[in-house]
Amino acid sequence: MTDKELLLTWNQYQRSVSEGDLALLVGLTHKSFLIRIQAGGLLHTHRGIVSHDELIGLPWGSQISSHQGNPFFVLQPGIGDLLKEIPRNTQILYAKDIGYAMITMGIGPGMHVLEAGTGSGALTSAMAYLVGSQGRVTSYEIRPDMHRLARKNLTRIGLEDRVTLKLQDLGEGADEREVDAVFLDLPNPDAYIHIVRQVLKPGGQFGCILPTTNQVTRLLPVLRRYGFAFIDVCEVLLRFYKVDGERFRPVDRMVAHTGYLIFARAMVIDPESGESEAVLPAVEAGTEEVDGEKLVDEIVSEDGNEIIPGLESSADG
Amino acid sequence: MTDKELLLTWNQYQRSVSEGDLALLVGLTHKSFLIRIQAGGLLHTHRGIVSHDELIGLPWGSQISSHQGNPFFVLQPGIGDLLKEIPRNTQILYAKDIGYAMITMGIGPGMHVLEAGTGSGALTSAMAYLVGSQGRVTSYEIRPDMHRLARKNLTRIGLEDRVTLKLQDLGEGADEREVDAVFLDLPNPDAYIHIVRQVLKPGGQFGCILPTTNQVTRLLPVLRRYGFAFIDVCEVLLRFYKVDGERFRPVDRMVAHTGYLIFARAMVIDPESGESEAVLPAVEAGTEEVDGEKLVDEIVSEDGNEIIPGLESSADG
Amino acid sequence: MTDKELLLTWNQYQRSVSEGDLALLVGLTHKSFLIRIQAGGLLHTHRGIVSHDELIGLPWGSQISSHQGNPFFVLQPGIGDLLKEIPRNTQILYAKDIGYAMITMGIGPGMHVLEAGTGSGALTSAMAYLVGSQGRVTSYEIRPDMHRLARKNLTRIGLEDRVTLKLQDLGEGADEREVDAVFLDLPNPDAYIHIVRQVLKPGGQFGCILPTTNQVTRLLPVLRRYGFAFIDVCEVLLRFYKVDGERFRPVDRMVAHTGYLIFARAMVIDPESGESEAVLPAVEAGTEEVDGEKLVDEIVSEDGNEIIPGLESSADG
Amino acid sequence: MTDKELLLTWNQYQRSVSEGDLALLVGLTHKSFLIRIQAGGLLHTHRGIVSHDELIGLPWGSQISSHQGNPFFVLQPGIGDLLKEIPRNTQILYAKDIGYAMITMGIGPGMHVLEAGTGSGALTSAMAYLVGSQGRVTSYEIRPDMHRLARKNLTRIGLEDRVTLKLQDLGEGADEREVDAVFLDLPNPDAYIHIVRQVLKPGGQFGCILPTTNQVTRLLPVLRRYGFAFIDVCEVLLRFYKVDGERFRPVDRMVAHTGYLIFARAMVIDPESGESEAVLPAVEAGTEEVDGEKLVDEIVSEDGNEIIPGLESSADG
Repeated sequence: MTDKELLLTWNQYQRSVSEGDLALLVGLTHKSFLIRIQAGGLLHTHRGIVSHDELIGLPWGSQISSHQGNPFFVLQPGIGDLLKEIPRNTQILYAKDIGYAMITMGIGPGMHVLEAGTGSGALTSAMAYLVGSQGRVTSYEIRPDMHRLARKNLTRIGLEDRVTLKLQDLGEGADEREVDAVFLDLPNPDAYIHIVRQVLKPGGQFGCILPTTNQVTRLLPVLRRYGFAFIDVCEVLLRFYKVDGERFRPVDRMVAHTGYLIFARAMVIDPESGESEAVLPAVEAGTEEVDGEKLVDEIVSEDGNEIIPGLESSADG
Repeated sequence: MTDKELLLTWNQYQRSVSEGDLALLVGLTHKSFLIRIQAGGLLHTHRGIVSHDELIGLPWGSQISSHQGNPFFVLQPGIGDLLKEIPRNTQILYAKDIGYAMITMGIGPGMHVLEAGTGSGALTSAMAYLVGSQGRVTSYEIRPDMHRLARKNLTRIGLEDRVTLKLQDLGEGADEREVDAVFLDLPNPDAYIHIVRQVLKPGGQFGCILPTTNQVTRLLPVLRRYGFAFIDVCEVLLRFYKVDGERFRPVDRMVAHTGYLIFARAMVIDPESGESEAVLPAVEAGTEEVDGEKLVDEIVSEDGNEIIPGLESSADG
Repeated sequence: MTDKELLLTWNQYQRSVSEGDLALLVGLTHKSFLIRIQAGGLLHTHRGIVSHDELIGLPWGSQISSHQGNPFFVLQPGIGDLLKEIPRNTQILYAKDIGYAMITMGIGPGMHVLEAGTGSGALTSAMAYLVGSQGRVTSYEIRPDMHRLARKNLTRIGLEDRVTLKLQDLGEGADEREVDAVFLDLPNPDAYIHIVRQVLKPGGQFGCILPTTNQVTRLLPVLRRYGFAFIDVCEVLLRFYKVDGERFRPVDRMVAHTGYLIFARAMVIDPESGESEAVLPAVEAGTEEVDGEKLVDEIVSEDGNEIIPGLESSADG
Repeated sequence: MTDKELLLTWNQYQRSVSEGDLALLVGLTHKSFLIRIQAGGLLHTHRGIVSHDELIGLPWGSQISSHQGNPFFVLQPGIGDLLKEIPRNTQILYAKDIGYAMITMGIGPGMHVLEAGTGSGALTSAMAYLVGSQGRVTSYEIRPDMHRLARKNLTRIGLEDRVTLKLQDLGEGADEREVDAVFLDLPNPDAYIHIVRQVLKPGGQFGCILPTTNQVTRLLPVLRRYGFAFIDVCEVLLRFYKVDGERFRPVDRMVAHTGYLIFARAMVIDPESGESEAVLPAVEAGTEEVDGEKLVDEIVSEDGNEIIPGLESSADG
């Protein structure tokens, strides 16, 4: 096995199916089956049996038939596909929320991210994928059943080595320090912010998802009290379209709500200066309008960025 | 320099500011300056001068003052911050679209991704960040000014080593083969799909963004003709909220539209079987309803997934 | 019967239930029954029988029990309730679209409105309600079953006297002239615009709903060709919230799409001047940005309206 | 003057401009002027003078030129146009919210509607228009400047005869009784619900708009306490499209938020039965899911309506 193959246990850089690969079999009705390819393996479906041996060596994207003649397509799953397939017994984060949170918090190769609670491990999987083989995810969960399910799910897709799953209440304290980012998927994140401050490195990224406005309004003052700033609250809506070029239109129904995403940065406050309380709230108060409008501004004027001179000026030094 | 530091040239795993780091200085009005820390460097702003030397050694998230006494916060930029700061002379992809596209296409460590056109290099930067030091991004652009700007932008944030920028029309052919994913940010992607097929590995991920419905309706039949399936079209909407727990409400205005995102997988078609035309359109036709509803289904019933038995059954083999 | 009672046959201005009234009985599970109160009448439900005699004289909003002891609430239906209850065998317009269309087109007391096609008569009912006893709705439909259903529905709610239902293709010509507004709920409105011009008074209001973007893009140039201007295209989205003050949040799912609403005004074009082609497109081209932004502008600056001086200046005359 | 002309003072049923008409003059840049036509009147604009005499007798929708040769279009304003033109010094309700509220509350000819606060009179105008010459609007306002502005605005468009404007705090009590519907546009509607109960007839319609979630969560329990049921909370979003058939797409920006709309019905509670508390909350709790889904259900199955048998069964009686 090459180094590159080691990067991801589902061996995603090959053009054809090999033993040990994770594979997604999709039937005509779009019912899908996530399997690990084994010589001699058989997939039993209500539309017939598919032999793993027939799949081995086929290019990804090929079509094969079950013994009953029903067609199946074999796809190499991406992390997006895995999120859809992940067995869960609670609601999991949606790709729309995960995608926006990961890019906003800058989750990428080599990072150490801490999460609570683990849940079914969907976000855990996405973060483990993104931090790569040199990164690390630590995830807290108090429900033993979820803890077990998450472990099973991570093992299935081969990402368990990058993840430390703890059956433990983050509220009782944590050993981790200087982590790059923390994401809370808990009903009462306001009760955990003091711990978050301990584990998060200065300037670190905080993220959270909450279903109700009441939870958000409880969290906001606590974030400020513990020195978080650059707070953003938003919601991501995703609307699919019918894939028919002659009758192009959105689908009839959509998910109206999953949760409010909250992001913030842990600021360093000098308690002696007494300045923080005066200054930080001001920053955050200003944030509101800017947050909502910064995207708009990018449309309106692409050049109002003193940002660039800023960059240039560093060369002056 | 340790291996880990090499992963990302903006040295994102440290707790405090060092020489050579990328840093984001943000003033009270949220005007921000992206700088590269150099001993002796000076940042000139209309609110006073900030000395790089004063920043070196400070924990990220600290507050300092300009020589005029105006406060600035020093933040370690994440990729999300960099997307906002990137100098551009055309519209760039938004974080909301990039985040969803990256997770849907599964862009992560070690991948080789091909892009056209480069534009200002915002998506290029995001992909270069996500594929990590062992991945690769190849990006085509026909406008020399954009090509240059993108190179400058990538160099500034230290990701240029992972990117091959080509001043070339992808439509005239490409040498790359077996790339994991292709993203087109071009006005006429339908004219490039035959080339995309050549460079994309079987089963590979295709993504695209288009501002108008006319462009989408032109692209869809071409994708089918070239053997793409599992086509999804969607739009991502992002709504920010005022960060005031006592008066919680959305901001007044939002971006109403950036573009339609189109995703598809390159399927292997046996031209002799003649089956593809019969079978593939059927699959795609089915996709429509499923795509719109799969998220809904995840809410409604968490257990309708024969997916899990599928995974299990592979162990039977 | 007083004049006021004659205004609406469902007698909506009384405080209590009388014989002849339309009434909405709603059970605990929110299953609803629309009935016409008759002395001696009985409503048979799977939760027991409700006697009309027991309802007569009760204040609206009262609770009564079926003979099995199951509670029912008796409500005086508003037009919004009737739209929900109307028996239909095709998709009907939604209240969200009807509400916006009616206010945009200014449908109100005394107007003569022409519609095609009638469908189940939902929009017909709403318009008949709004134009009042001195207004008039003429509605074309080519399907005999729909024509009959619409008549039945209008008769049930007592609005048939204000409506002329025609089992006829509007495309074959119409006798009506100088109508105040025309609304088309047809798949191919572009084929009817020349007739619309004949029946609509100069300056009259045109409205239309179309499910696909392809239909909209076909209609737009035809509207221009026939001298329509001030064209607006929009979509109305409605998101409900869970009615729980402790856990306030949107409901899980929503309707993602019903249709695109198109509005326009019939302009008077002097064919000899040859000016129209030069001038009208310019107006409409300008419309685009203004349409999207006029609402935004209302937030940003409340005072940029030279509109008011305009009004004042008329007094100068 | 005929009876029909009396219905609306802006004489909306004519095909051409007459003295005394309200008219909307729109220039090429879509700047608009609302004027009352007077023989000898002159409209002074920065694009030249338009003589009222030249307008008199022209068909609505005609184009004329100012003395400088600049083109203007003359339109008969609908209520939707008037809402845009209305001079205001606070934020006014948007057409999107007014349209949905009016149809949901069933505001139509002959109704008596009570409102507080009047504000600039935009909603007042819309309601006065819809209730017609036989209906009535009573509107409370505590700010003298708003009270005066609303009167001026209503007089300008000729609807003042249907409206009673009171410079009075509704919270101090009201003489009105048995009104058909009440709409509150106040920051603290929860403090007015006991008065609303006094003026609203049994079963009457209640509506309200509130900008923040905190206000909504304060209102909901108060509505329940005072016997309101069938509570709905929703928000209406409106997205405009560029009117270009070749490049069809949404406009760049949209209004992200105006307010949450709350609707409810005043139920009759028998305080002796003690049942109300047990029963009503149950109904309302049920409402939540139903409200969100009833629209969806209309798509899914058009025939699940026992409503129709209900209607039929009344004939059995």
